[in-house]
Amino acid sequence: MRPLIPFVHQSSSSEAQQWCTTLSELLPQCDVRLFEQLSDEDKARVTMAVVANPEPSDVAQLSQLKWVHSVWAGVEGMMANLAEMPFGIVRLTDPHLAQTMSEAVLAWALYLHREMPQYRQQQSSGQWQSRDYTDACDRHIVILGLGLLGQKSALRLVDNGFKVSGWSRSEKQLANVDCYSGDEALTEVIGDADIIVNLLPLTPATEGLMDQAFFRQLKGASLINFGRGATIVDADLLQALEQGQVSHAVLDVFTEEPLPSSHAFWQHPDITVLPHISAPTSVSTASRIVADNISRFLLEGVIPPTVDKTLGY
Amino acid sequence: MRPLIPFVHQSSSSEAQQWCTTLSELLPQCDVRLFEQLSDEDKARVTMAVVANPEPSDVAQLSQLKWVHSVWAGVEGMMANLAEMPFGIVRLTDPHLAQTMSEAVLAWALYLHREMPQYRQQQSSGQWQSRDYTDACDRHIVILGLGLLGQKSALRLVDNGFKVSGWSRSEKQLANVDCYSGDEALTEVIGDADIIVNLLPLTPATEGLMDQAFFRQLKGASLINFGRGATIVDADLLQALEQGQVSHAVLDVFTEEPLPSSHAFWQHPDITVLPHISAPTSVSTASRIVADNISRFLLEGVIPPTVDKTLGY
Repeated sequence: MRPLIPFVHQSSSSEAQQWCTTLSELLPQCDVRLFEQLSDEDKARVTMAVVANPEPSDVAQLSQLKWVHSVWAGVEGMMANLAEMPFGIVRLTDPHLAQTMSEAVLAWALYLHREMPQYRQQQSSGQWQSRDYTDACDRHIVILGLGLLGQKSALRLVDNGFKVSGWSRSEKQLANVDCYSGDEALTEVIGDADIIVNLLPLTPATEGLMDQAFFRQLKGASLINFGRGATIVDADLLQALEQGQVSHAVLDVFTEEPLPSSHAFWQHPDITVLPHISAPTSVSTASRIVADNISRFLLEGVIPPTVDKTLGY
Repeated sequence: MRPLIPFVHQSSSSEAQQWCTTLSELLPQCDVRLFEQLSDEDKARVTMAVVANPEPSDVAQLSQLKWVHSVWAGVEGMMANLAEMPFGIVRLTDPHLAQTMSEAVLAWALYLHREMPQYRQQQSSGQWQSRDYTDACDRHIVILGLGLLGQKSALRLVDNGFKVSGWSRSEKQLANVDCYSGDEALTEVIGDADIIVNLLPLTPATEGLMDQAFFRQLKGASLINFGRGATIVDADLLQALEQGQVSHAVLDVFTEEPLPSSHAFWQHPDITVLPHISAPTSVSTASRIVADNISRFLLEGVIPPTVDKTLGY
């Protein structure tokens, strides 16, 4: 009997079907199926599953589960729901995703560096006014979070002439990037930032990290949040914009998504709202990575590095 | 008596004074002065002048003039006015300016590539909707004009993952860039473009190049004009936008600058208007280049390559 690999997801979608089709092609030795197509007998023999923000009650039915492979890089939703369950969680680590994210970081860093929001406002009021140009080497960009996405983003910014620093929980080293770690260093490095890019995972330690005390350290920096929405305290960001501690915020992720239509962010002149598009998962590249990990597990019994359930990533 | 170097400009400005001060510091062996501070005797002994869009009647008073050094890269204003005069025109060729321009080309190419105008419109109507992501390697950007600015821009786009072609009057070769030249090739290369970047000089051959016939070749491409405004026929661009031949235009240069307040471009939803800011001259880097050229002329009698008065650049 071929190994059975279920795809467990919250709502049926064309993307789920696309995942099944692609994984079936890449893993002809396996029987890849949507979770809802499994019989009770099937569920009892599943040892690994591919998951996209699954219902905990669904995953709980897979009694022999050794590990799940998320198709997303951020797994905080699963951590909250599944941390108590006795199996490993592997998150997606996709170089192609890191490339797309570093492109997004560069694109919106240039958007802020070349003052596109200000020029847009000038256009809408019919104002012809050049603004003083600042060299990229005089723009200090600070990346919070130096995992794969943060590292690629930092190096891309360096390649394009910016002055770049990075901050992470554990110590890191990166060519031409000033790397910092620890709470004290965070206060120091953000105080000197022109643009702050958040790429931290959402964990108990990073939830609400950007609060009044954080924003008080800033001297008119701009903010890009491509990490997770709940790292920012929304009300505190609005206040920081009002008080000039933050000049402009580019937000792609929110505590509640889609961003509720009544939320003050939508119409704020100094906030750019994006609908979680900085780095979409590419099924074609991600499915190859997931399939390779599954093959290795089936052949050699090797499970890739799993998420640390204490740290949350 | 120290060699006298006048700075000839159209309207008095703090920038003219800044040029004089900086050049005086870099050329202590010279007497650098604003044109209006020259006596008739002074005017009769001047052999070279630094110029910023000068009045032809001012320059005509310098009877011994051998050459002028423009502080701008584009010299079409001077060509129209001064082409008949018996001295050479040297235009500014500044690697720092080329770097700033290539940054602008990358910034606004990413602006179009990552669909920032569309996401802005979605934000203003409160619409949460992700748009299909296209890989940079599947975006074909065509650069028109492969002088120093065009070459640097093309290479910067290649470094950031785009598929890049270039077109120029004379044949050029550039690593990882498909280079074309000649009228026939132009029609071919723009027909396959997703983004077209104009960096051509304004000459009799490029004036009005982007007309109905040009736009008819396009299949919804976007346009960036960082060259000169009169390369575009404004009415034809408006029609091309209406008919979907062009999706969006980022315009930094215009036939008349400042762009008149009644112009249709200001309020067009698919036009981004910029006030000629893509690559501002940096007095600190440009003055060093101008000063070096003047020193070499004074020591060795060497005049840098001058503008071809037939070609116009």
